[in-house]
Amino acid sequence: MRLLVVNGPNLNLLGQRDPDHYGRITLTEVQDRLLERARELGVELTFFQSNSEGALIDFLQQEARGAQGIIINPGALTHYSLALRDALADTRLPVMEVHLSNIHAREEWRARSVVAPVSLGQLSGTGWRGYLYALDFLVAHVREEGAR
Amino acid sequence: MRLLVVNGPNLNLLGQRDPDHYGRITLTEVQDRLLERARELGVELTFFQSNSEGALIDFLQQEARGAQGIIINPGALTHYSLALRDALADTRLPVMEVHLSNIHAREEWRARSVVAPVSLGQLSGTGWRGYLYALDFLVAHVREEGAR
Amino acid sequence: MRLLVVNGPNLNLLGQRDPDHYGRITLTEVQDRLLERARELGVELTFFQSNSEGALIDFLQQEARGAQGIIINPGALTHYSLALRDALADTRLPVMEVHLSNIHAREEWRARSVVAPVSLGQLSGTGWRGYLYALDFLVAHVREEGAR
Amino acid sequence: MRLLVVNGPNLNLLGQRDPDHYGRITLTEVQDRLLERARELGVELTFFQSNSEGALIDFLQQEARGAQGIIINPGALTHYSLALRDALADTRLPVMEVHLSNIHAREEWRARSVVAPVSLGQLSGTGWRGYLYALDFLVAHVREEGAR
Amino acid sequence: MRLLVVNGPNLNLLGQRDPDHYGRITLTEVQDRLLERARELGVELTFFQSNSEGALIDFLQQEARGAQGIIINPGALTHYSLALRDALADTRLPVMEVHLSNIHAREEWRARSVVAPVSLGQLSGTGWRGYLYALDFLVAHVREEGAR
Amino acid sequence: MRLLVVNGPNLNLLGQRDPDHYGRITLTEVQDRLLERARELGVELTFFQSNSEGALIDFLQQEARGAQGIIINPGALTHYSLALRDALADTRLPVMEVHLSNIHAREEWRARSVVAPVSLGQLSGTGWRGYLYALDFLVAHVREEGAR
Amino acid sequence: MRLLVVNGPNLNLLGQRDPDHYGRITLTEVQDRLLERARELGVELTFFQSNSEGALIDFLQQEARGAQGIIINPGALTHYSLALRDALADTRLPVMEVHLSNIHAREEWRARSVVAPVSLGQLSGTGWRGYLYALDFLVAHVREEGAR
Amino acid sequence: MRLLVVNGPNLNLLGQRDPDHYGRITLTEVQDRLLERARELGVELTFFQSNSEGALIDFLQQEARGAQGIIINPGALTHYSLALRDALADTRLPVMEVHLSNIHAREEWRARSVVAPVSLGQLSGTGWRGYLYALDFLVAHVREEGAR
Amino acid sequence: MRLLVVNGPNLNLLGQRDPDHYGRITLTEVQDRLLERARELGVELTFFQSNSEGALIDFLQQEARGAQGIIINPGALTHYSLALRDALADTRLPVMEVHLSNIHAREEWRARSVVAPVSLGQLSGTGWRGYLYALDFLVAHVREEGAR
Amino acid sequence: MRLLVVNGPNLNLLGQRDPDHYGRITLTEVQDRLLERARELGVELTFFQSNSEGALIDFLQQEARGAQGIIINPGALTHYSLALRDALADTRLPVMEVHLSNIHAREEWRARSVVAPVSLGQLSGTGWRGYLYALDFLVAHVREEGAR
Amino acid sequence: MRLLVVNGPNLNLLGQRDPDHYGRITLTEVQDRLLERARELGVELTFFQSNSEGALIDFLQQEARGAQGIIINPGALTHYSLALRDALADTRLPVMEVHLSNIHAREEWRARSVVAPVSLGQLSGTGWRGYLYALDFLVAHVREEGAR
Amino acid sequence: MRLLVVNGPNLNLLGQRDPDHYGRITLTEVQDRLLERARELGVELTFFQSNSEGALIDFLQQEARGAQGIIINPGALTHYSLALRDALADTRLPVMEVHLSNIHAREEWRARSVVAPVSLGQLSGTGWRGYLYALDFLVAHVREEGAR
Repeated sequence: MRLLVVNGPNLNLLGQRDPDHYGRITLTEVQDRLLERARELGVELTFFQSNSEGALIDFLQQEARGAQGIIINPGALTHYSLALRDALADTRLPVMEVHLSNIHAREEWRARSVVAPVSLGQLSGTGWRGYLYALDFLVAHVREEGAR
Repeated sequence: MRLLVVNGPNLNLLGQRDPDHYGRITLTEVQDRLLERARELGVELTFFQSNSEGALIDFLQQEARGAQGIIINPGALTHYSLALRDALADTRLPVMEVHLSNIHAREEWRARSVVAPVSLGQLSGTGWRGYLYALDFLVAHVREEGAR
Repeated sequence: MRLLVVNGPNLNLLGQRDPDHYGRITLTEVQDRLLERARELGVELTFFQSNSEGALIDFLQQEARGAQGIIINPGALTHYSLALRDALADTRLPVMEVHLSNIHAREEWRARSVVAPVSLGQLSGTGWRGYLYALDFLVAHVREEGAR
Repeated sequence: MRLLVVNGPNLNLLGQRDPDHYGRITLTEVQDRLLERARELGVELTFFQSNSEGALIDFLQQEARGAQGIIINPGALTHYSLALRDALADTRLPVMEVHLSNIHAREEWRARSVVAPVSLGQLSGTGWRGYLYALDFLVAHVREEGAR
Repeated sequence: MRLLVVNGPNLNLLGQRDPDHYGRITLTEVQDRLLERARELGVELTFFQSNSEGALIDFLQQEARGAQGIIINPGALTHYSLALRDALADTRLPVMEVHLSNIHAREEWRARSVVAPVSLGQLSGTGWRGYLYALDFLVAHVREEGAR
Repeated sequence: MRLLVVNGPNLNLLGQRDPDHYGRITLTEVQDRLLERARELGVELTFFQSNSEGALIDFLQQEARGAQGIIINPGALTHYSLALRDALADTRLPVMEVHLSNIHAREEWRARSVVAPVSLGQLSGTGWRGYLYALDFLVAHVREEGAR
Repeated sequence: MRLLVVNGPNLNLLGQRDPDHYGRITLTEVQDRLLERARELGVELTFFQSNSEGALIDFLQQEARGAQGIIINPGALTHYSLALRDALADTRLPVMEVHLSNIHAREEWRARSVVAPVSLGQLSGTGWRGYLYALDFLVAHVREEGAR
Repeated sequence: MRLLVVNGPNLNLLGQRDPDHYGRITLTEVQDRLLERARELGVELTFFQSNSEGALIDFLQQEARGAQGIIINPGALTHYSLALRDALADTRLPVMEVHLSNIHAREEWRARSVVAPVSLGQLSGTGWRGYLYALDFLVAHVREEGAR
Repeated sequence: MRLLVVNGPNLNLLGQRDPDHYGRITLTEVQDRLLERARELGVELTFFQSNSEGALIDFLQQEARGAQGIIINPGALTHYSLALRDALADTRLPVMEVHLSNIHAREEWRARSVVAPVSLGQLSGTGWRGYLYALDFLVAHVREEGAR
Repeated sequence: MRLLVVNGPNLNLLGQRDPDHYGRITLTEVQDRLLERARELGVELTFFQSNSEGALIDFLQQEARGAQGIIINPGALTHYSLALRDALADTRLPVMEVHLSNIHAREEWRARSVVAPVSLGQLSGTGWRGYLYALDFLVAHVREEGAR
Repeated sequence: MRLLVVNGPNLNLLGQRDPDHYGRITLTEVQDRLLERARELGVELTFFQSNSEGALIDFLQQEARGAQGIIINPGALTHYSLALRDALADTRLPVMEVHLSNIHAREEWRARSVVAPVSLGQLSGTGWRGYLYALDFLVAHVREEGAR
Repeated sequence: MRLLVVNGPNLNLLGQRDPDHYGRITLTEVQDRLLERARELGVELTFFQSNSEGALIDFLQQEARGAQGIIINPGALTHYSLALRDALADTRLPVMEVHLSNIHAREEWRARSVVAPVSLGQLSGTGWRGYLYALDFLVAHVREEGAR
């Protein structure tokens, strides 16, 4: 099983931006922890980060074929990128949406995700651990679906 | 460490209601899996379910004292029970909000949680596994906070 | 055939409250007329009234099993009790919604029923007779469905 | 006692349009059942159907004088015909509004009736039987008012 | 100079409907007073009333050619008949809008006229006299425009 | 009979501001024509103009006692001065609202008058003649009311 | 194959109204071009225009039986005639919606079509040519559907 | 004279919850001060607090008969409990609404009280003293009404 | 301690306007009762009333220096005068907002106070007594703050 | 004459994505059909597709100079890319907007095009044929404009 | 060249109000710096400040004649004074709007200026320097316009 | 001191696009004037323009480290690019927002800037000079902050 792990704009700065708020862990360290867990679960991960909506869509179009699921933190694109939503829907893969902070605990517009209607689930406010939970859930989901 | 695991209206029927949609697992079985994980993590759990907003608030007021965190699936109260929100806020405990299905993938009003602004995070669309993730996160969070 | 007849908050005061507006008939008298009609139609009725949303949900969960349909006047819960709506939907029974006064002839918010989307039909402004029409319709509906 | 039974646009096609949804009964058959019941109740009925808002208003203006009440299913005019509403109000007769399907169980705009504020009551989702209930209620209402 | 005086749905009942509110003057009497004033002003009037939006549009299309202005009370069509608005705009004639009661002193939706954006002016709440003022203004306006 | 004729902010510049739009007639000339007509009708007029909301309210409080009606063009205060509305309502006199241009033919917010709910009628888009029509109507109205 | 070509209010004036904006071509000329193209495509056309919503619905009810598709320009009824929408839906025929000018390039309310949800497609801003494109598309669509 | 003093969800924790914000006074102490003042005024008080909407309604139904007025702080139910509002209205007693903090100085939704339309007055932001003012006002109001 | 007691537009007419609604007490009499109570409490009062927003702001700017608190009934300025709000905020004094009638029991817009976000509390619907309660609360508040 | 044919995000996958919904024709095949028609019409076409908003704008800026018109299907950028809209407007070329499915027959937000206000027309729901109609219309339009 | 520099409510307190937020510079000092710059630029300035909307309008009416442009900070009147907007528009002079703090970085309603649609430009968040920039821009603008 | 000067989509065409509206000055010429002023002020400038949101974010991430402030004209991204807003906020540098035309003098949506809440100030409608004012203000601001 191969899964895509996709991060949107500004998430490459994780660990540098506002460390009191987001913690001091970097995106590379998050990816290391994901790799470790993936090895335990016997699955393969492909990582991608970009600040460009177009590059994210290009990646999804090219890599979706050989993959069985997607973990995505679209950053601020969450709230308006209908093009990213279309790209996710076109993959026909199960999608898990992850947000480091709780987007539902702040202004009303932050709670709106245009990506959610094409996702299996959404994890919000669980920091870097949210990626691990998404990985765990996606693997279980794909295996259960496959077993049917 | 003692945590409260609270379920709101209609969640006692889990496993009977719409099994194709929610799965065949019952609330008791979910609680068993939580207990098992809690044992591994070395924490204690107190369960409560009620169809009554008032009873849920009573429970929170009485049990919050000796507890260090709350996992709650408020069911449909999620969308309007400001009284439940006040009760959660008054406990001053970290709260994790769990929803079996993805409330952000449907009608706009379902995506609105009046409880979210007083919660650490929200897990939505991860079925019964969401409770385990919430437990895992809450224990890690409380221990990290305690370590500061 | 057994049907549930459920009344929400403040409907126990029928006949005492604002008699010029709601008439002088009491809830007991309405239930007597329903029983009489039920006898003619050969069906059994189970009555319940409560001012508590939780108690209404408890009743629906416990009694729905042996019943074939529900007549409900949710009182003011009509406009916000999404938990009651879930409970009604979970019964998977045909539901008829009854309102004594015409909720569509007043302020805009009164016209909104959160229960309507899980109901077969809605009778509004026909006073106590609305319960009889709901009974008549539900019996005919269940028998026609059964005959298919 | 004479009552008007008025049907708006597209209701002449009843029985032909979407029979799985609206049933196979035609408007003529509904009117026959109404006549039968009217005979039992000792009242006279005048029927009218038109696809034209103007013709419906003309009819109401001409026939209201000798009538004691109105049963109307305005079809899609329900949602915008303020002119029909004025015509109904000008008759100063009690009005019962009937809808075959439950207009409150669908999109929000379908639940809005501009005619409701000048009506005694509204029956929605009770199919052709709704006309009978409206007849029954109107006769009872007029007789009770007359008895005061 | 020839002017059109057009009245929409339900205005044929003027004098009969709610006389305490609208006065006891009939539409014919209003037209007589307009004719009298028109004679003094040396202009010709063509009257038309219909309950049908389509008939009103037909009239405007046929009579606009030989006319220099339009006085219209669209009745309830004021609030939604964009087709009537188009017909008025297509005449390219100056239009005066008249309302017997003050449509701005009641519910917010009554204050909205879809016809107003293609009219010179609007007279509201001045009863039958409003037609006279509209006539007076339109004659003055046309003569001043002609004099340029 | 004595009537008040009140003009709000910026109306003192009538004739100077945008003459192509509002005409070249000054406020003094409008008042002269009103005086002439008032003489014919046998009524007395008291004029007042101010750019200050407070001064307009002071005037209404002091002069309302001996007056039988008010003609007012509140200028831009029309759209927000709830204090002016209160002052008008407190006089308990019949009020006619006049606007030189058609406030209903432009942006939606211009069509909203907070003063309208306490006025008998509103004349909009009839230029300086609107004052004369308001005078004519108010005199007729007061005499008819007095004759009752 | 027989198709209906239906035009709503004010479209009979095509060529006379605002020729700089809509062109000088008349409705008859548009119909001639459509006939010519229909002959090439081997299909039959039935034309209808009316200013009356009711007459348009009558036509659709009577002619839909022997037809395979509908081209309609509902004029201003586009924005509010839910009755016309019902009539179109009841025909169960494929519908193409045509607008001479680009209704999406102006005020927001003009962009809203209540007819669109029951149409295959919408052509807007392509002048009289839009009818030809609609004809071409409808014929191709019906033939492809028939070939399945 | 007997008055009811009713407190809604979470108010039993007064003095413990957020003491910097709400003060350290407990609900019992507030009630003691009310009793003292009531003695001075010669009136009797009946206290009730519950976290359950249903229990609050039960109390009002049972105790309203022998009472002359109600002081209520509905807690968070203020913003959505239309059932509580109905119960208050059904008592036909004068109602005073009290809020410890100023609900109008925060988010817009907090300023909305569904209970206010059936209340005499609302005291907001005056802490525990608000109950005393409500008591004082209610006693004066009832005596003045009685004196009429 | 010196407090400012400020009344906005139209409140100078208290006692004359709508006595059935507002009572027959005049503003002078209210001020006398306030003075009496102030003497008991040992505080000094400075009164001001104006119909002009600008004059109210001038007063606040000049008098705030030597004062410890403000009681204000802004009249209709409550709903839109952001300039008055700024002036109140600039004084940095505790502010109590008073309304004679219950502004929350009527139209939705009346419930909105732009002044509330800079006030300690709001008393609404308690007639002239509201000023006394405001005085009492402000004195207690200032003394408690001073005692910290 | 040279025209630009521009496709936005995800349209490169045409034929692969949801073939039951969009058909099995690929973007290359659509372009072949366009080229064929262009040859007949004697015009030259330049194709471009990108998933990146920025690349689409770059293309328009560079190629607009030598072109006479633009056919664009902006994909999901239709609904929010004001930058694309600016780029189209800056070209000062006639623009035709094409959508494969009927964007007006679904959710309300899909019907909103931020690009429409700078376009000549919009073709929606006509599948790949829409590009041909747009080509045909644009050529006719440019030639007619040139002939003036 | 003569320019008007106008300040609205509460700006006379500049330097005293919230010095940490607005700085310690007074309005007089700002005016001195403006005068100095004006001398360099060879233009004359007339200053005015008032807390009264009416006085600001009076000033603009009297002084606009001999002036070539206006710099205005309307204070809180920015958000609702349509009368001030009319007065500015009537001057037909170029207007520059200045705000000390960034009104677009806070609540949504603060970002709305009713004055902006009649202004050349708006400077927000640049403190006292904004007046200098406005002066600089206005002088350049007037000279460039004069040079055409 | 080094400052970043960033321009978003379509601003590279400055001078070519709509010269009557935006003037004939090119982006290069604007940058030359900025360089000249920067030299006078003793600061260094780094310029960047792109039509791609992603490239703008990349630039900000890479260059923010060695810079002390940012001047940005985000073009149409102003109204929706929450990703750009995040990138600006992550730099933790003071930001000045510049718009050539007055975005507050047109449609309501143009007045909304999602970037404003993370900016010091906004200059709108001052053409190319706005960049100079932003430069001047930013230098003064940074030096004053540094001096604290």
